[in-house]
Amino acid sequence: MKLHILGCYAATPSTQSNPTSQVLEVKNHLFLIDCGEGTQVQLRKNKIKFSRINHIFISHLHGDHFFGLPGLISSFRLYGRERELHIYGPRGIKEAITLLLKLGDSWTNYPLLFHELTSSNMEMIYQDEKVTVETLPLDHRIYTNGFLFREKIGERKLDVNGIAKYKVDKAYFQNLKSGKDFMRADGTRISNSKLTFDPPKPKSYAYCSDTAFNLDLVPKIRQVDVLYHESTFLESELKLSAKTKHSTAHQAATIAKEANVGTLILGHYSTRYTSIDLFKEEAEEVFKNIWLADDGKVLEF
Amino acid sequence: MKLHILGCYAATPSTQSNPTSQVLEVKNHLFLIDCGEGTQVQLRKNKIKFSRINHIFISHLHGDHFFGLPGLISSFRLYGRERELHIYGPRGIKEAITLLLKLGDSWTNYPLLFHELTSSNMEMIYQDEKVTVETLPLDHRIYTNGFLFREKIGERKLDVNGIAKYKVDKAYFQNLKSGKDFMRADGTRISNSKLTFDPPKPKSYAYCSDTAFNLDLVPKIRQVDVLYHESTFLESELKLSAKTKHSTAHQAATIAKEANVGTLILGHYSTRYTSIDLFKEEAEEVFKNIWLADDGKVLEF
Repeated sequence: MKLHILGCYAATPSTQSNPTSQVLEVKNHLFLIDCGEGTQVQLRKNKIKFSRINHIFISHLHGDHFFGLPGLISSFRLYGRERELHIYGPRGIKEAITLLLKLGDSWTNYPLLFHELTSSNMEMIYQDEKVTVETLPLDHRIYTNGFLFREKIGERKLDVNGIAKYKVDKAYFQNLKSGKDFMRADGTRISNSKLTFDPPKPKSYAYCSDTAFNLDLVPKIRQVDVLYHESTFLESELKLSAKTKHSTAHQAATIAKEANVGTLILGHYSTRYTSIDLFKEEAEEVFKNIWLADDGKVLEF
Repeated sequence: MKLHILGCYAATPSTQSNPTSQVLEVKNHLFLIDCGEGTQVQLRKNKIKFSRINHIFISHLHGDHFFGLPGLISSFRLYGRERELHIYGPRGIKEAITLLLKLGDSWTNYPLLFHELTSSNMEMIYQDEKVTVETLPLDHRIYTNGFLFREKIGERKLDVNGIAKYKVDKAYFQNLKSGKDFMRADGTRISNSKLTFDPPKPKSYAYCSDTAFNLDLVPKIRQVDVLYHESTFLESELKLSAKTKHSTAHQAATIAKEANVGTLILGHYSTRYTSIDLFKEEAEEVFKNIWLADDGKVLEF
C-alpha cells in the first residue's frame, strides 16, 4: 500500500496547509479518502492521475473534509470522464452534490453513483477479489465514519524446489496456489506445505478522522499495519478537544497502543500550534512508532 | 477604486491558476466578486482582511465562480465573525448554502443574508451614501449577472480664495458643498461656481463574466472607467466560444470600443493557450487600452 497525504490540517485551508484528503494506492486502486477544499489542486501537485480515481470515501460532511468534492466532480466532467465514479458518504451527500450540479446545469456525462451511509455499526461497503473496505463508526459532532482498507489473502506462492522434487505437472499449479494437497498417480498425498509458501501477509490501513477518544475502535482495528488517527489537539487542550469531539495526540497514541497497530499516523492538526513535532513528542510517550502526516508526504508499507 | 484579481482563469483550478474571484476596494468597502474554489487561500495570499468583507456578489452558479463560497462562509464562522454578511446571487444560492451548512450542522453564528436575483433587467441591488451596485444581465448558459459599481457624485469642494473674497461664514459651508448659491446680507447672490470646485469625477467599474458577445451591454456600461469583460477564447475558437456562450478577446474589445470605456480588463482565460499575451494582441487590434488580468495583480484607478 502507498498512502499520499494531500492535506492533513483541521478547519480552514491556508497558504501553507490543506484540509483533509488522502489517496490510498492498493492493488491497482487509487482510493480518495475525504476531499477538503483544494483537493484537486493537491492531486495535481502530487501528480496523481484523476482518471484513476473511481472510488471516493467521505468520512463526514464538515466542509474541511468535503467542500472540494463538487469541484472535483465538475472537473472530471470537463476532462471527458466516461467511467463510473462511486461516492461513499453520509446520507445527504447525494442531495447536496445533486443540487449544486443542478443549479449549474452541469450534470455529469459519466455515471455518478452514490452509496449513502447511515449505519452506526461497522459494515462492508466495498469489496472485489483483492480488497475490502469497511466503515469504522466514529464519535464526532455529526455522523462520521472512518474506513478500514484490507487486502484479501492472496494465493499461495509455488515452491519451485518442491515442485521439481515431486515432479508436479503445471496442470496442478492452480490447485496448489489455492492450498490443495497434491495427489500423485500412485495415490500418495504430498502436503501443500511441501510445495508452496504462505502468501504475503495482507496489508491493512485504518483511517480515523474526526473522532473523540473512543475505545470502541480498538477491537475493530486491532493489529492493522497502519492507523491514521486524528490528533487535532495536544493534552493541554483536553477540554476543548472533548467539547469539539476531537482527540489529542496522547489519546491517538493510546488507541494505537491498545489496538497493537504497526504504525500510527498523526494528522488533522489544529493550526494553533507552532510545530507539528509537538504532536509526535506527546504521542511517543505512549506509543513508539509514530509517523507525522504532512501535506505532500507519502508512506509506503 | 482598487481591484485585486484573486483568480481569473476559466474552468478548473490548477497549481498555477485560480478560478474567478476579485476584490473591489471602493469608499471603504471590500466587495468580493465571485468566489471560485480556493478563494479564501487567495484572500490570504493577497493579504486581504476577511473581516472587512461584508458583501459578496456571485455572477452565476457555475462551480468556477461559486464553489469557494461554502468554505469561506464556514471560515468566517471559525474566525468568530459577528457582523452581517450579505450574499447577492442567482436564485438557488440560498438553498445550496443552507443545505451544506445544515448537513455539517455548522450554521453561522453571524447573520447571513441572501439577496436572490431573478430579474432579466438591470436593477439596483445595493446602495449607500457613496456607492451603488447594479446588475448587468449577461447572456450565458445559465442565469448570469455582471455587476456595475459606481461611486456617487461627491460634495463640491470649497474654493478657499472665493470664500475669502466674498467673506462667507463657516455656517454656510455645507450649503455651498451641496451646490447652493450664497446670499449676502445685502441680498446680492454669489453664484456657487465662484465659491466651489466640481467634485472629483465618480469612478465606475463594470464586471462582465461570463457572457456571449452581447451588444445589449453597451448602453449599460457606456463610458465606465474600467470594464472587466471575459475573454475565454481567441477568435480561432469562435465557434466553440459561441457554443459555450463565452466571448473572444476580439469581442470583448469590440464591447469596450462601442461603450467607449476607459480601460478594458481581459480575463477568464481558457487554459488551452500557451500565453495570455495572445489575448492582449488580439484585443489591441480593436481597442488600445487593455490591461491583462492575472492572479495576484492589482489595478488602481
